[in-house]
Amino acid sequence: MLGRIIIDDVRPRTPTGAHPANAVVGEAVRVSADIFRDGHDILAARIRYRPADAKRTAWLVAPMAVVGNDRWSAVIEPTRMGMYSFVVEAWTDRHATLIRNIELKLAAGQPVDVEQAELALLGEDEGPKSAIDLTTSRSFRIWVDRERALVGAWYELFPRSDGGFKGTLERLPAVAAMGFDVVYLPPIHPIGRTERKGRDNTLGAGDDDPGSPWAIGAEEGGHTSIHPDLGTLKDFRDLVSGAQQLGMEIALDYALQCSPDHPWVTEHPEWFFHRPDGSIAYAENPPKKYQDIYPLNFWPADDDRRALWAACKDILDYWLHQGVSIFRVDNPHTKPMAFWEWLIPAILAEHPDAIFLAEAFTRPKVMAKLAEVGFTQSYTYFTWRNAQSGEEGLRTYMEELAHGPKADFMRPNFWPNTPDILSGPLRHGGPAAFRVRLLLAAGLSPSYGIYSGYELYENEPASETNEEYLHSEKYEVKARDWDRPDSLAPFITAINQIRRRHPALSRLRNIRFHHSDNEAIMAWSKRSDDGSDVVLVVANLDPDHAEEATLYLDLEALGMTPPLTVTDELSGQTFTWPASSAYVRLDPWYEPGHVFHVRGADAP
Amino acid sequence: MLGRIIIDDVRPRTPTGAHPANAVVGEAVRVSADIFRDGHDILAARIRYRPADAKRTAWLVAPMAVVGNDRWSAVIEPTRMGMYSFVVEAWTDRHATLIRNIELKLAAGQPVDVEQAELALLGEDEGPKSAIDLTTSRSFRIWVDRERALVGAWYELFPRSDGGFKGTLERLPAVAAMGFDVVYLPPIHPIGRTERKGRDNTLGAGDDDPGSPWAIGAEEGGHTSIHPDLGTLKDFRDLVSGAQQLGMEIALDYALQCSPDHPWVTEHPEWFFHRPDGSIAYAENPPKKYQDIYPLNFWPADDDRRALWAACKDILDYWLHQGVSIFRVDNPHTKPMAFWEWLIPAILAEHPDAIFLAEAFTRPKVMAKLAEVGFTQSYTYFTWRNAQSGEEGLRTYMEELAHGPKADFMRPNFWPNTPDILSGPLRHGGPAAFRVRLLLAAGLSPSYGIYSGYELYENEPASETNEEYLHSEKYEVKARDWDRPDSLAPFITAINQIRRRHPALSRLRNIRFHHSDNEAIMAWSKRSDDGSDVVLVVANLDPDHAEEATLYLDLEALGMTPPLTVTDELSGQTFTWPASSAYVRLDPWYEPGHVFHVRGADAP
Repeated sequence: MLGRIIIDDVRPRTPTGAHPANAVVGEAVRVSADIFRDGHDILAARIRYRPADAKRTAWLVAPMAVVGNDRWSAVIEPTRMGMYSFVVEAWTDRHATLIRNIELKLAAGQPVDVEQAELALLGEDEGPKSAIDLTTSRSFRIWVDRERALVGAWYELFPRSDGGFKGTLERLPAVAAMGFDVVYLPPIHPIGRTERKGRDNTLGAGDDDPGSPWAIGAEEGGHTSIHPDLGTLKDFRDLVSGAQQLGMEIALDYALQCSPDHPWVTEHPEWFFHRPDGSIAYAENPPKKYQDIYPLNFWPADDDRRALWAACKDILDYWLHQGVSIFRVDNPHTKPMAFWEWLIPAILAEHPDAIFLAEAFTRPKVMAKLAEVGFTQSYTYFTWRNAQSGEEGLRTYMEELAHGPKADFMRPNFWPNTPDILSGPLRHGGPAAFRVRLLLAAGLSPSYGIYSGYELYENEPASETNEEYLHSEKYEVKARDWDRPDSLAPFITAINQIRRRHPALSRLRNIRFHHSDNEAIMAWSKRSDDGSDVVLVVANLDPDHAEEATLYLDLEALGMTPPLTVTDELSGQTFTWPASSAYVRLDPWYEPGHVFHVRGADAP
Repeated sequence: MLGRIIIDDVRPRTPTGAHPANAVVGEAVRVSADIFRDGHDILAARIRYRPADAKRTAWLVAPMAVVGNDRWSAVIEPTRMGMYSFVVEAWTDRHATLIRNIELKLAAGQPVDVEQAELALLGEDEGPKSAIDLTTSRSFRIWVDRERALVGAWYELFPRSDGGFKGTLERLPAVAAMGFDVVYLPPIHPIGRTERKGRDNTLGAGDDDPGSPWAIGAEEGGHTSIHPDLGTLKDFRDLVSGAQQLGMEIALDYALQCSPDHPWVTEHPEWFFHRPDGSIAYAENPPKKYQDIYPLNFWPADDDRRALWAACKDILDYWLHQGVSIFRVDNPHTKPMAFWEWLIPAILAEHPDAIFLAEAFTRPKVMAKLAEVGFTQSYTYFTWRNAQSGEEGLRTYMEELAHGPKADFMRPNFWPNTPDILSGPLRHGGPAAFRVRLLLAAGLSPSYGIYSGYELYENEPASETNEEYLHSEKYEVKARDWDRPDSLAPFITAINQIRRRHPALSRLRNIRFHHSDNEAIMAWSKRSDDGSDVVLVVANLDPDHAEEATLYLDLEALGMTPPLTVTDELSGQTFTWPASSAYVRLDPWYEPGHVFHVRGADAP
């Protein structure tokens, strides 16, 4: 039976309610609900919340206020990792109701002596304690990650192209100097020889072809072994601690598939798909074939399933033990949702700092479901979004990611490129295209990343119909000249420094777009949780032409009144905008956009 | 733990899942869900459904098909009143997957002998029976009403103005001739004398003032008594059966409040609010006072609550026993949701043909919640919607009512006027305004109603700032000349006849709007469940000016290809439209719009 007061549509939450919403430590989390009752009495409401394992801890309390249309909200701030639970409580505020009625009657010249007697009878207002109709919602959960789950600049590199772990260790200071937080390595395990892929994804690899790192497993070992060419376990641990000393973290690839030479193929044939001719099925998506990879059968009979899933968890436990807690998960959409729903919370229970980035380049509902069942972050469709408006627009997409129902549990990680994807204006594109795509990724999403070579404008696609790179690093070792004088590194460094200086850019749900009268010029702002930092980014989406626009700023979103003082953190120039509209002109040859630090009339 | 296949966002449903969605007998109900699994295998899905009380009955089955973006749907048709339950089932279609793979490989010139062997091993396709991963959703419920719950033309009249029940019985043939289905009577009970309201809602009624019918209860009795001036219980039963013989039904008002003279005031003082000065609180919404009405305290201490709620149910049981099964519920939003959540299912369990129309002229979320907890229909904001587009537009509102989440459980009943509301173009409006508002109500919503006097263009507001009628019938007896030669009755008759001839107009969720290049001309179509009947309504929203527009018809919505043959059911004229655009001109003095019966190129 319903309580006296209705408490509906509580957010944040996941669609089915079976999984927690998410947040990070120190994040201002807006909790909201529809709250109403019959009649005209005034209500009061609050959030009670606490870490879910702190049953003996006092509840924290945040009073809620009406935001309109029977919607109430409050901001809570989780202060440590782990599961939080919260409830919404509402009650009739009899004091406020009587006082309002007295005021209305006085204004109409009506007697109020009975109301005053009622008020006296009520005694002191003890809030929910003296409420006669206190109604409490069911309990909701929020999983609280460390801040890196939401905020970070990622850099992907193939350690074999940098001379293994030792060579990579030597490159780390340069990566750290560019301002990256996470260095993500494709699989570091032994690579199969059977059906190994040669250069440019060809069959019949030569003896010198290193093979794809995703063809995991050889006689040297499987997912808990290290490719001998990269170094030893000690070398790897040195790399991990080297990164730590530079304020960075190493992220590993978690790719649950096996080369035909993986030890599991002989030790656990029951974990694979067997075909009528006696062979084990390799991966294929007809007519495409991936002969160097055997997919695992994640749903064999009960006991085998338990054993396989446990073995998959053992891999993570092993690398967590080696000091790695960030995993980029390869093709999670080809494994059952039930597997992730079991695995990720099991890991988080022991390692609440673990982070899982889903490489879920798949259909929208599948991508969202992976986030719902536990993934910390997801690659998104950013790579293919280049316009501002419309169904395929960046603005439309950001509104969905930051303000739609998914924002309660899915976090984007925007990548302009990956080893698999060279897309849009980057194909045959010049420095202007590389600058604006980086500005967009880093300015729109608190987490973003690039695959190395981006700073050298690598832009040659495998073919006009193929989204991969020509001479893909997945199948060969690359030598690059990091010291090229025209490198994008200084621009990347500037962007990452701005991101670190401005807490406003460390949040997702705070994004607000501003009207621009030119579709090619997109403007958005972010305001920090405490309101003290406001950044306005203006980007020219067209890397081939200078564009100009008048911006019409949403002052309520900025939380400011004109005149506005804006300092472009890229150029150092400061402007004063007397009103809420502003003219901008951006020539992509010189600058992809502005990143304005904005101060209002009442700024010190 | 999740099953192998994900089945999410099943519709129809209510927001919390605690209450059933709704439908009517014979309605084609579209059931849909997000269905997907990991990987690329082809899925199959179906709905299993049956009356919830028919545990021993075989399940009915409807195969589902993909409609795009991992959304699947099927149509089911409930054939009797009462609760239905359904589940969604999905499984991997191994046959279809293999056949697709074979075709793709053959097209690419690859060998398929292993696939053919696998297909042979599978044996016959037994659908879900042979599935290895059959996944079943939780069970969902649909409450199935009789058709009148969705479709009906209502007519409201004060029997005291027609000479009581006997006089009203004499008027019924004229009402039936206009094509109405339901005759709704304001409260028919004894009216209190204490603080009785006089003409024009004044204090200090004279001896001849009849008082407001909503001030229920006098020494003659309360909610189960009949006002002596209206007639006897036998007269009332004669009225009920007289209506039945004309194919109509009498609907009663269910107004849970008491005049100070109601027997409950002395028999059950514990059901009222007592003030510190010893008085019982009358209804007020400061500074407004309703001294002739005592509100009931619906949430007294436990035992009293049970007794009051039971007494309220007894009232309904009494009138159901007298042959009434449609109730228009006065101000339901001033009673607890928990009360309705208990009461309505309790009545429906014994009287599944009962219909409850909520007079929920309140905030949007409260109105929707009343529908969710059990109300059959709701008055809506139609009365205040006059434009086509925008936040306050009729089109926007219909999209929300017919296609939004609320469409699963809330049914509109559109009233151009009520005894309380004379609004928009009807205020001081001429026949053109009365025609178009009727066309809109009757053409947009399967259920609509008018308050008598509408056909005589009663248009004088109480004041320029008051939405009520001048000399409101709520406080006095009205004499009207039903035989006026300029009456709107013939137009109303024509509209109701068209509604009965065209099953397309008997549905809500089938509405589709068509683009018009003039904001004042609105066009929408409805297509019957079986696709055999298509109606296109074109209305001129501006009763003061002739308007013209080019319509751009959505042929997919019509399910037709041009040339279109359209017959205006109002004028009898037939036109042939060679393409999907059409020019219309509507002079409100002559015609408020067109109601086209549409046939396509392949029509017989």
